[in-house]
Amino acid sequence: MAVMRMEHDFHMAEGEDDNSYAKNSRLQENALVETKPALQEAVTQVYAALPHPTMTIVDLGCSSGENTLFFVSNVIKAVADHLEKLGGRTAELQFFLNDLPGNDFNRVFRSVQRFKNSIGGMCRRKGEEIPAFFIAGLPSSYYRRLLPRSSVHLFHSSYCLHWRSRLPHGLEGKKRPYLNKGNIYIAMTTPPSVVKMYQEEFEKDMLLFLRLRHEELVAGGQMMLTFLGRKHGDAYSGGLCRLLGLLSRSMQSLVDEGLVEKEKLDSFNLPLYGPSMEEVKAIVDQSQQFRMNHIKLFETNWDPYDDSEGNDVRDSVQSGINVSKTLRAVMEPLFASHFGESVLDELFKKFAYNVEVHLKKEKTKYSVITLSLTRI
Amino acid sequence: MAVMRMEHDFHMAEGEDDNSYAKNSRLQENALVETKPALQEAVTQVYAALPHPTMTIVDLGCSSGENTLFFVSNVIKAVADHLEKLGGRTAELQFFLNDLPGNDFNRVFRSVQRFKNSIGGMCRRKGEEIPAFFIAGLPSSYYRRLLPRSSVHLFHSSYCLHWRSRLPHGLEGKKRPYLNKGNIYIAMTTPPSVVKMYQEEFEKDMLLFLRLRHEELVAGGQMMLTFLGRKHGDAYSGGLCRLLGLLSRSMQSLVDEGLVEKEKLDSFNLPLYGPSMEEVKAIVDQSQQFRMNHIKLFETNWDPYDDSEGNDVRDSVQSGINVSKTLRAVMEPLFASHFGESVLDELFKKFAYNVEVHLKKEKTKYSVITLSLTRI
Repeated sequence: MAVMRMEHDFHMAEGEDDNSYAKNSRLQENALVETKPALQEAVTQVYAALPHPTMTIVDLGCSSGENTLFFVSNVIKAVADHLEKLGGRTAELQFFLNDLPGNDFNRVFRSVQRFKNSIGGMCRRKGEEIPAFFIAGLPSSYYRRLLPRSSVHLFHSSYCLHWRSRLPHGLEGKKRPYLNKGNIYIAMTTPPSVVKMYQEEFEKDMLLFLRLRHEELVAGGQMMLTFLGRKHGDAYSGGLCRLLGLLSRSMQSLVDEGLVEKEKLDSFNLPLYGPSMEEVKAIVDQSQQFRMNHIKLFETNWDPYDDSEGNDVRDSVQSGINVSKTLRAVMEPLFASHFGESVLDELFKKFAYNVEVHLKKEKTKYSVITLSLTRI
Repeated sequence: MAVMRMEHDFHMAEGEDDNSYAKNSRLQENALVETKPALQEAVTQVYAALPHPTMTIVDLGCSSGENTLFFVSNVIKAVADHLEKLGGRTAELQFFLNDLPGNDFNRVFRSVQRFKNSIGGMCRRKGEEIPAFFIAGLPSSYYRRLLPRSSVHLFHSSYCLHWRSRLPHGLEGKKRPYLNKGNIYIAMTTPPSVVKMYQEEFEKDMLLFLRLRHEELVAGGQMMLTFLGRKHGDAYSGGLCRLLGLLSRSMQSLVDEGLVEKEKLDSFNLPLYGPSMEEVKAIVDQSQQFRMNHIKLFETNWDPYDDSEGNDVRDSVQSGINVSKTLRAVMEPLFASHFGESVLDELFKKFAYNVEVHLKKEKTKYSVITLSLTRI
């Protein structure tokens, strides 16, 4: 593609097969488990402060897999627990599941009835009253206004906000000279000017995001945001840079073998940015529209099926495969439209091997930022 | 199928091909054109009475074709005209497009951005301010609660409410004896006991529908409902009975030719009912939850491409084909799951011929009821 258009071209890998996002979303599931207590707290606070008997909850970047409704069930259970412990008025819950129009909403919608039956049964077994809830789909980029003013009580977003709305101007399309040759994201050979472009794009996106959500939230409404970031200030550091470095190295091998044109690699960059906690705090301060309840960072193994805590990787071959599948499920559509479908199997095979070799030397992790905000 | 499950099995014919609903929804489009002035009036009234700056509009049975967003654009234009003429506060419009989970929501969602651009351009050319609007999808049967209490200002439904939520118990599945042998709906040989079953199912459905919508509407909220009905009290009369009689006759020919088992036809009935105006009025009175603003009946040619008003059919061969295609686009999934895909081409070919022969003798029309209600 000449210019990457995130709103049109970006979505998770489709379908139900071995490479689909639906089958490879364990990493994102782990984050939902990790942030469940914070979500419960936010739900309880917002619920207790409801001025009228409807609570509106929006999941931004809901995707289409088990996780989509897992989030919904976490909210319903938090409300049911709250009602059981503290009593009070029963409110009705209005969920909006948001993602880009390319997301497979049909798949989500067709699983809703089964989900309703199963969560109803679960609450009845626990003797809990289940609040009435309604699920709608909301197809749009969240870098646009999504909903009427002052209509939302809680926004949630997990594993999305590291994606930028677009590539920085200087990195877009076929503009020469290519500023980040041989790389697909910030890597050791990326010039500082390119890092600055990524940072500025992040700042612009986040300020816009905060402004839009501020308009849509009621006063006192909350946001629970979870996204990839990094531990240290140095923009060249962190697990995301390392991992994508291995992916660009895998692509470089395809170039060396003549399977991919060098120019294809040189002209490709990912519209991502994993910020540091300080960068996030600075933007929230700058916006002056939210109070920060907490900002935390947790680390998570590259291999979402490896829940070990030490510095040893149990099975680096299997971990290489797992990491490669997880990343492919997210990246496939972007890579396919730039490099073509035909190189993907080879690319992600090489990538699995490179990850395996890396993990044997060093168990690197992702840094994940969770941010809880209240609208002022 | 053993038992027809409307929530799972019912949807318009999919895709974009010659037999798709998307390409064969002119009949439904004509109804939207016919009811546009009444819709404008309802929108204007509801808008003027808004207690806060968000107006929520729900289209029930939105389907997936040009008509889906045609309705949305009619509402937006009505608001824009109102604002231009009368001024006043600009409200934001929240649309919910509702249909069964089997509807192709992906197709609707992927056309929303193009739609937004085109309606924005149109309003700018007219120098009108366009109200901010947001479009969500709402997958569920409307014989269930769809949305929180007191959250909706206007419900709209076009060409849906003649569908029943299910077949009457006595006609369902493989229950013997088959009570409506050789027919697929109310026909001359249908026993009065079966007509009564259809009527009772209609009453039960409509009372439930009114009760649910009453809970969801704000006080003073309105409903604009358009559906197939009949002119006279006699349940055996009217264009819908006649047309479906021709369809069952076509199916009978396939039985005679040995292409379809007799039992297949004997055990099949359509979960439809086209009520008389009196039946509709009686139900609204019985519900005691709505004030009737108006109830009207208009007639429309079977052939949606024939806009002539006299009693002559210009081209009965073409009309036969048009009528057959229009009905197939709506009925195909139900017929395919009972009779199998393989007989459909032959069935609708015979049907087109039977319609042609009928129209040569007599230009029969559909009766369409439009009902405008205000929540008490």
